Amino acid sequence: MPGEFDLIQRYFNRPSQRADVLLSVGDDCALLQVPPGEALAVSTDTLIAGVHFPHDTPAYDIGWKSLAVNLSDLAAMAATPRWVTLAISLPRYEADWLQAFANGFFALADQHNVALVGGDTTRGPLSITVTVHGTVPASSALRRDRAQLGDIIAVTGSLGDAGRALQHALGSEPIADSADAAVLLMRLNRPTPRVQAALALRPLCHAAIDISDGFVQDLGHVLEASGLGARIDIAALPLSAALQRQCSTTKAAIDLALCAGDDYELCLSVPAAKWPAAVSAAAATGVVLSSVGEVVAGSSVQCVDHGTPYPVTAAGYDHFGVQS
Amino acid sequence: MPGEFDLIQRYFNRPSQRADVLLSVGDDCALLQVPPGEALAVSTDTLIAGVHFPHDTPAYDIGWKSLAVNLSDLAAMAATPRWVTLAISLPRYEADWLQAFANGFFALADQHNVALVGGDTTRGPLSITVTVHGTVPASSALRRDRAQLGDIIAVTGSLGDAGRALQHALGSEPIADSADAAVLLMRLNRPTPRVQAALALRPLCHAAIDISDGFVQDLGHVLEASGLGARIDIAALPLSAALQRQCSTTKAAIDLALCAGDDYELCLSVPAAKWPAAVSAAAATGVVLSSVGEVVAGSSVQCVDHGTPYPVTAAGYDHFGVQS
Repeated sequence: MPGEFDLIQRYFNRPSQRADVLLSVGDDCALLQVPPGEALAVSTDTLIAGVHFPHDTPAYDIGWKSLAVNLSDLAAMAATPRWVTLAISLPRYEADWLQAFANGFFALADQHNVALVGGDTTRGPLSITVTVHGTVPASSALRRDRAQLGDIIAVTGSLGDAGRALQHALGSEPIADSADAAVLLMRLNRPTPRVQAALALRPLCHAAIDISDGFVQDLGHVLEASGLGARIDIAALPLSAALQRQCSTTKAAIDLALCAGDDYELCLSVPAAKWPAAVSAAAATGVVLSSVGEVVAGSSVQCVDHGTPYPVTAAGYDHFGVQS
Repeated sequence: MPGEFDLIQRYFNRPSQRADVLLSVGDDCALLQVPPGEALAVSTDTLIAGVHFPHDTPAYDIGWKSLAVNLSDLAAMAATPRWVTLAISLPRYEADWLQAFANGFFALADQHNVALVGGDTTRGPLSITVTVHGTVPASSALRRDRAQLGDIIAVTGSLGDAGRALQHALGSEPIADSADAAVLLMRLNRPTPRVQAALALRPLCHAAIDISDGFVQDLGHVLEASGLGARIDIAALPLSAALQRQCSTTKAAIDLALCAGDDYELCLSVPAAKWPAAVSAAAATGVVLSSVGEVVAGSSVQCVDHGTPYPVTAAGYDHFGVQS
């Protein structure tokens, strides 16, 4: 059986084309060059089989998603992705699995010109921890605590798709239509981190967060950090055609959009004066930006459906409690 | 049961005193300031229960060791430690365990003025992944590939102690003497990353690696990267008094020093002309530096005991194969 060094070398040691990688995999540390005048942005996320993805998720998708959720954190800060480290533990050595995982991981890494600069491979229950590094001029970073009264609350793309796919994947509410199932599963298994949109929106927003645990819960973090509240217009939530077709009621689709996790869209706080420019900037990167509400005084998220309060029932998506 | 956010907040969200931490735990990314003219050094290591430490290891020690093995990688590069992220997965919420883990982690972090700037807490089998960040002038970093013919091969501290402690902890060869057992277990469970010694030795060495998998194996990585070989003088290996007392033969102690892992001492390649200065520089940080051999032409590690070839039998310590 190959040792950990062989494993790392074989599947993950690709030479980097980035000039800012002075030393990559193969020494005790990677050596990296941060551009003068920029701050280093760092985030780390772990994915565990049966908690963050169903056990039968294809290896390619696990590789893709383990990087995507981390790139999404950089997008939420409007940082430019540069480097990543990967710690992976596997129950056993499986060449096919590792190759497929690496293919998925590098497919997304290549899209964003991210270099894998370090890693650790150990034997244990399937678990992947990625630490991602980007850079951003410190004063331009989109922080959670800078939302302002009267800002438009916007989201990229559509919400709830990944939540519906999870119901299907876990067998609780199967989707009969294979085309819709495929579309929704792609949203769960191969989320698109909104990196380009975030960079385009950076000068036009006050605050941002990525939607990993559910829109209401994640928006709540922005509001708490900013000391404000929000009013959300239920009718304005962007719902995909596939989601609407595959939910038995509009309410079911809305509840997924409000509370299901794993969408990895961005939630942004945009000053009203910059709203038209923000829509255009997002569109230039191929992303639809939807206004779904407004930052108000207070400390809570009030959802309103055509003037009537809409109760938010689900507790949101907590990785420490889900699928127990 | 508290969610992951509460867990992180409660045990790991300590305000940082470092001026180079612009934004710490609590946003999508940490924002950090790398000093102008220095490169960022990054390394990541995972510790898994039953693989990297015995299942009954105290939580304090697991916290300590998970940071120590990562700081040791920075030391091997002669980088100054600055920031760390922590991904921890736990089978269940245990307040006492988390508090003890955090106490051990922060005890070592405080010694080195390292700030915890990000993390992720998930439910799963016990596993800890730490990614450590330091900085070093790029041209001064101690790389593996810079050993030169005629260099003295040196090691800090003593070798084999952690390996003997592991035999004791696993019950294969218990240590009756409680004082020696305690001394050796500290070497296994609370290794001392040689950060200060590395910084002092930086201008006096050609290459370095830390000894995590076994002296011969780790030295082999330096030699392979440098395209050279080494002759090691068995009689010069630094063996602690406790190790010598608790091994039934000198050969047993030597074999542990050569092949057991987890010592987290440094192995350095020192130009002969700088040897006296290197010994003094290490001593000024409280660390004994021992000359154990010489870099020679070739591609292998030859061990010699008073002029006679000494066979190296153990295969070294491979985390993917150990304790299977």
